[in-house]
Amino acid sequence: MSLSEEKLIGKLAMLSVLDETYTSHVDVLGWQQCIGKVGSMESNKVVAAIETAAKKNEIINGSVYRETHALYHAIMEALHGVTRGQVQLGTVLRTVGLKFSIVRGTPYEKEAEGEWIAVALYGTIGAPVKGLEHEAIGLGINHI
Amino acid sequence: MSLSEEKLIGKLAMLSVLDETYTSHVDVLGWQQCIGKVGSMESNKVVAAIETAAKKNEIINGSVYRETHALYHAIMEALHGVTRGQVQLGTVLRTVGLKFSIVRGTPYEKEAEGEWIAVALYGTIGAPVKGLEHEAIGLGINHI
Amino acid sequence: MSLSEEKLIGKLAMLSVLDETYTSHVDVLGWQQCIGKVGSMESNKVVAAIETAAKKNEIINGSVYRETHALYHAIMEALHGVTRGQVQLGTVLRTVGLKFSIVRGTPYEKEAEGEWIAVALYGTIGAPVKGLEHEAIGLGINHI
Amino acid sequence: MSLSEEKLIGKLAMLSVLDETYTSHVDVLGWQQCIGKVGSMESNKVVAAIETAAKKNEIINGSVYRETHALYHAIMEALHGVTRGQVQLGTVLRTVGLKFSIVRGTPYEKEAEGEWIAVALYGTIGAPVKGLEHEAIGLGINHI
Amino acid sequence: MSLSEEKLIGKLAMLSVLDETYTSHVDVLGWQQCIGKVGSMESNKVVAAIETAAKKNEIINGSVYRETHALYHAIMEALHGVTRGQVQLGTVLRTVGLKFSIVRGTPYEKEAEGEWIAVALYGTIGAPVKGLEHEAIGLGINHI
Amino acid sequence: MSLSEEKLIGKLAMLSVLDETYTSHVDVLGWQQCIGKVGSMESNKVVAAIETAAKKNEIINGSVYRETHALYHAIMEALHGVTRGQVQLGTVLRTVGLKFSIVRGTPYEKEAEGEWIAVALYGTIGAPVKGLEHEAIGLGINHI
Repeated sequence: MSLSEEKLIGKLAMLSVLDETYTSHVDVLGWQQCIGKVGSMESNKVVAAIETAAKKNEIINGSVYRETHALYHAIMEALHGVTRGQVQLGTVLRTVGLKFSIVRGTPYEKEAEGEWIAVALYGTIGAPVKGLEHEAIGLGINHI
Repeated sequence: MSLSEEKLIGKLAMLSVLDETYTSHVDVLGWQQCIGKVGSMESNKVVAAIETAAKKNEIINGSVYRETHALYHAIMEALHGVTRGQVQLGTVLRTVGLKFSIVRGTPYEKEAEGEWIAVALYGTIGAPVKGLEHEAIGLGINHI
Repeated sequence: MSLSEEKLIGKLAMLSVLDETYTSHVDVLGWQQCIGKVGSMESNKVVAAIETAAKKNEIINGSVYRETHALYHAIMEALHGVTRGQVQLGTVLRTVGLKFSIVRGTPYEKEAEGEWIAVALYGTIGAPVKGLEHEAIGLGINHI
Repeated sequence: MSLSEEKLIGKLAMLSVLDETYTSHVDVLGWQQCIGKVGSMESNKVVAAIETAAKKNEIINGSVYRETHALYHAIMEALHGVTRGQVQLGTVLRTVGLKFSIVRGTPYEKEAEGEWIAVALYGTIGAPVKGLEHEAIGLGINHI
Repeated sequence: MSLSEEKLIGKLAMLSVLDETYTSHVDVLGWQQCIGKVGSMESNKVVAAIETAAKKNEIINGSVYRETHALYHAIMEALHGVTRGQVQLGTVLRTVGLKFSIVRGTPYEKEAEGEWIAVALYGTIGAPVKGLEHEAIGLGINHI
Repeated sequence: MSLSEEKLIGKLAMLSVLDETYTSHVDVLGWQQCIGKVGSMESNKVVAAIETAAKKNEIINGSVYRETHALYHAIMEALHGVTRGQVQLGTVLRTVGLKFSIVRGTPYEKEAEGEWIAVALYGTIGAPVKGLEHEAIGLGINHI
């Protein structure tokens, strides 16, 4: 009825982005995953990079809006963690360098809960000057 | 001049909260850390639990406002990742069960960058009914 | 591939809450719908009233988190329209009197788009004094 | 002392934008109204289109800041309903296609309440790809 | 056509709250003003204290919703400056001690611009422990 | 243990920006201060202007991220007061003309509280048309 301890999709997505050796844990479960990178001052480019990776790696079916919609909200929620207040980058003079992990799987014991998608982000945020930055993390989860 | 690869305070704080074996990595660096848990529908209780743990474990000096202020903003930023939009729990009918890790250390190569504090949160958020929840993550980092 | 003109779920949900004669349009489509009312200064009670109505009227299956999650986010999005900035009521000294309509149906031409849920809110928001209020509207839509 | 049942300015503005036959209800009251359309990824262009329509149709007197100010806040509040969290479009990679209705009238029974303005928005929001979108609604009301 | 240099309502409201000798500048203009204090962890009590002072001192006519509405939004805007992100106090474990100034006057040269209201706030915000706080300021302005 | 009445950094920063005669009060304390102006529809240019002034006037050491970070958050908090909801200017079709004051000093009696930075903003916000604007104020304070 609840989240299965071995199938914590958010934890696995986050661990994979922090340490790539964890990607095998996702493979063992037979779930889909892709890892990528994006650096930009333009928040729309961050969204686009994650969406494009998800479609190219067939994590979602880009021609079904339902799946695009689920992914979009997961991305936006993950960006809340990274931006912490206003989902803005260049417009408030900051930039990000992020690694992302997208995982699609079945984290609940009950079959009726179906598939969910997790977007994990890890990297740096800061002034558009090398070194003037600290780390940032975000996680978004949605049913798909 | 920039973040030292072996001293990524945010990554270490997050890994520690996801997998306690990582706490030894923080110990090796000679940094201060504490791990704790809090579950509540009241967002102020979540803030209080983290602040109390930080003071009891002497991660911060609770009688110096400067340190309390640095921690408070790190907590609030971490809560943005968990709540993704409105830093509210019970008032929007949801509850959290969180594990937290607080790390204080020197993540930058340059000595002038001094000490920083990271608050990492991992757990579940959802309806106040067992099982009706998904995972959530947050990270806040501040200079101290 | 897109929204079907006769099956605009958001428009139908909103029209039903503004004028009950429109509920028959939803019936004709064979979709599920319920209409209800809630007045409160406590935002959590507004969320609870809508969730309870959805479960009692079997618009969603309350024992499946997936459905609760879809509904919850639709409610929160609708509340953004009503509250316009901070999803808060009594904590900023205001109260609402709302009529709500919850509709579950298949608004897209393509079968793969599956079911969606819409929550429409209409009523008044204002000071906790009769007459010191104006109208407010909100609509949230999610895949389910 | 309160809102007059026959003069619910928000309801009339929203119904007019959902179904143009309702515009006659506004005419009967002797109120001012204009209907328009705007599609854009740039949130400033949405604001500009509504402001321009209001001025051209003499719903507001564009040379009086008081009226511009009242309208601007009504537009911003309506956009909260459409965007549900961050008043951003292209910067978070989404676009809108909206119909809008602006109504200026006297919704309260008491004469001292004077004139109010309502901005109702209805349309779609989604990815900048035809079909990958769902409906969105917003209403803003202000004294003028 | 623009703001009159001698009649900057926001500046006068803020100066009055920072230094009471400035209240005479408001008197000279023949404008209405009141000064008050409120300390609370409950954001609704802050709103209530300002509204009550405005009514008791007849800055606004509390039986006219139009005036209550104008004041309410000015208060909320001023609270944005004080809270800087989430208009929350006790729910995020912080408290305020504020002095407030409410000014009603005619800041524009052109007569058609009519009356406006300004709410200025100055005080401290911080942990609910004496001394663990820093200063905060907010200003809200609205047409009335 | 608390804020020293003669060393209220936020009050001094705000008074200096409202009336330049107050800058001498800051000088007397031996604190650092700079005053500047910026007008823009681009929020990033406002941030950049304040950061540049702080570095050029050696209020902060721009090569130490710790100091840049402290200033950045003080600026963002001050912008919350100016923008009151969304830290956006041109993207929601508005522009600002601001005077700013940056003060660095030691506002607490206890030496352990160290240095703090205050950013005070005062000016106008409104439509990108001369005269269609009202005043706005913001204050951000951070430990440095």
